Amino acid sequence: MLDAAVAVFSQRGYHAASMDDIAERAGISKPMVYAYLGAKEDVFLACVQREATRLMEGIAGVIDPARRPHDQLCAGLRAYLTCVGEHRDGWSVLYRQARVQEPFAGELAEIRGRMIEAVTALLGGVLNAEGPEVPAAEVSAMAHALVGAGESLADWLVDHPDESPEATAARLMNFIWMGAANLLRGHTWRPASQPSP
Amino acid sequence: MLDAAVAVFSQRGYHAASMDDIAERAGISKPMVYAYLGAKEDVFLACVQREATRLMEGIAGVIDPARRPHDQLCAGLRAYLTCVGEHRDGWSVLYRQARVQEPFAGELAEIRGRMIEAVTALLGGVLNAEGPEVPAAEVSAMAHALVGAGESLADWLVDHPDESPEATAARLMNFIWMGAANLLRGHTWRPASQPSP
Repeated sequence: MLDAAVAVFSQRGYHAASMDDIAERAGISKPMVYAYLGAKEDVFLACVQREATRLMEGIAGVIDPARRPHDQLCAGLRAYLTCVGEHRDGWSVLYRQARVQEPFAGELAEIRGRMIEAVTALLGGVLNAEGPEVPAAEVSAMAHALVGAGESLADWLVDHPDESPEATAARLMNFIWMGAANLLRGHTWRPASQPSP
Repeated sequence: MLDAAVAVFSQRGYHAASMDDIAERAGISKPMVYAYLGAKEDVFLACVQREATRLMEGIAGVIDPARRPHDQLCAGLRAYLTCVGEHRDGWSVLYRQARVQEPFAGELAEIRGRMIEAVTALLGGVLNAEGPEVPAAEVSAMAHALVGAGESLADWLVDHPDESPEATAARLMNFIWMGAANLLRGHTWRPASQPSP
C-alpha cells in the first residue's frame, strides 16, 4: 500500500494526489486506506518515513567502521546514489515534495543534519589520515559542499533513467575527490594563476 | 521597510513573524505596512523577489561574456557567495524559508533552474575549451553537483559570520576545480586503486 502511495505522490504531487488515486493504485477500497494509514497527511508522512529510513539504512548497511574513512565515504556515496536510483519515486517524495512542505520539511532537515555530521566525521578522518591536521572549519565546509553536491546529483540522476548510479557516483568522486586528493598534496587553486583579460 | 521585513522573517521565521514585528522594526504603524505592501504573504513575496533579484543581479553584474568561461564561472561564484555573505538575512529568507514553502518554493525552483542552465553553459565552455568534447551528460551532472555544492556552502557561510565569502569561494574552487583540472588532464578517480580490506 505504501508503494502505491509513494508512486501516486511522486507522479501527481502531494496536493493533487487523492486518496482515490492511492486506493485505485493499491487495488483496495478507499475506506481500507483510511483504516490502515489514516488521512492523506498521515499517508504522506508514512511514505516520507519509509523512504527516509530506507535511504539511511541503505547507507548505514555498507558503512563498516573497521574500514578506512576514505572507503567508508566512497561506499556510503555509492549506496546513497544506488538507493536513489532504485527508488526514484521515493526520492521524488522526499526531496521534491516533503522538503518543500511544512511540517515535513523539518524532518528532512534533521536527516540532512545527520548526514552532514556523518560526512564531516568521515571526511575529517580522510583528510587527517595524512599530513598536518586540516582545520575543522575547512572539513565542515567541505562536508557541506559534498552533501550539497550529492543531493543535487541524486536529483539529476532521478531525471536520467538511463544513467547508472555507479556511473553517477564515479562522476562525483572524480569531480570532488580528485580535488581533495590534490589538496592533500598541497596543490591548491590560485586565482592569481588565472589571468583575467 | 523591506529591510525590516527581511530581518524579521529571517529571525522569527515566516509563520512566527507578525505584521506587528515588521511595523515595529520598520518604525512605522501596522496600517502603513498593510497600505504599502499588503498582507503578510504579500510582504513575504516582496522580500523573496527583492532578495532573489539582488542575488541574480549581483551575479549577472560580474559576468562579462567577453571573458573566458573559466573566469566568468569563478567571478560568478565569488559574486554569489559575496552577495550571500553580505545579506545573510536575505539568504535565510530565500533558502531556509521560501524554498520550503509553497507557493514560494516554485519561484525558487525556477531561479535555481536558471542558475543551473547558466552554469551548464559556462562549464561546457570551460571543459570543451581544451581537448576532446566532454559529453553533455557529464557537463550537466557536473553543473548540478557544482550548484548543489555552492548552495550548501552558501548556507554554511551564513552560519559562519567570521568566514569571508572570498575564502569560502576559494574553498569551493579548491574542492571542485582542482578536480575538474585533473579531469581535463585525463586523471580520473579509480575505485580499483583504493583497496578495501
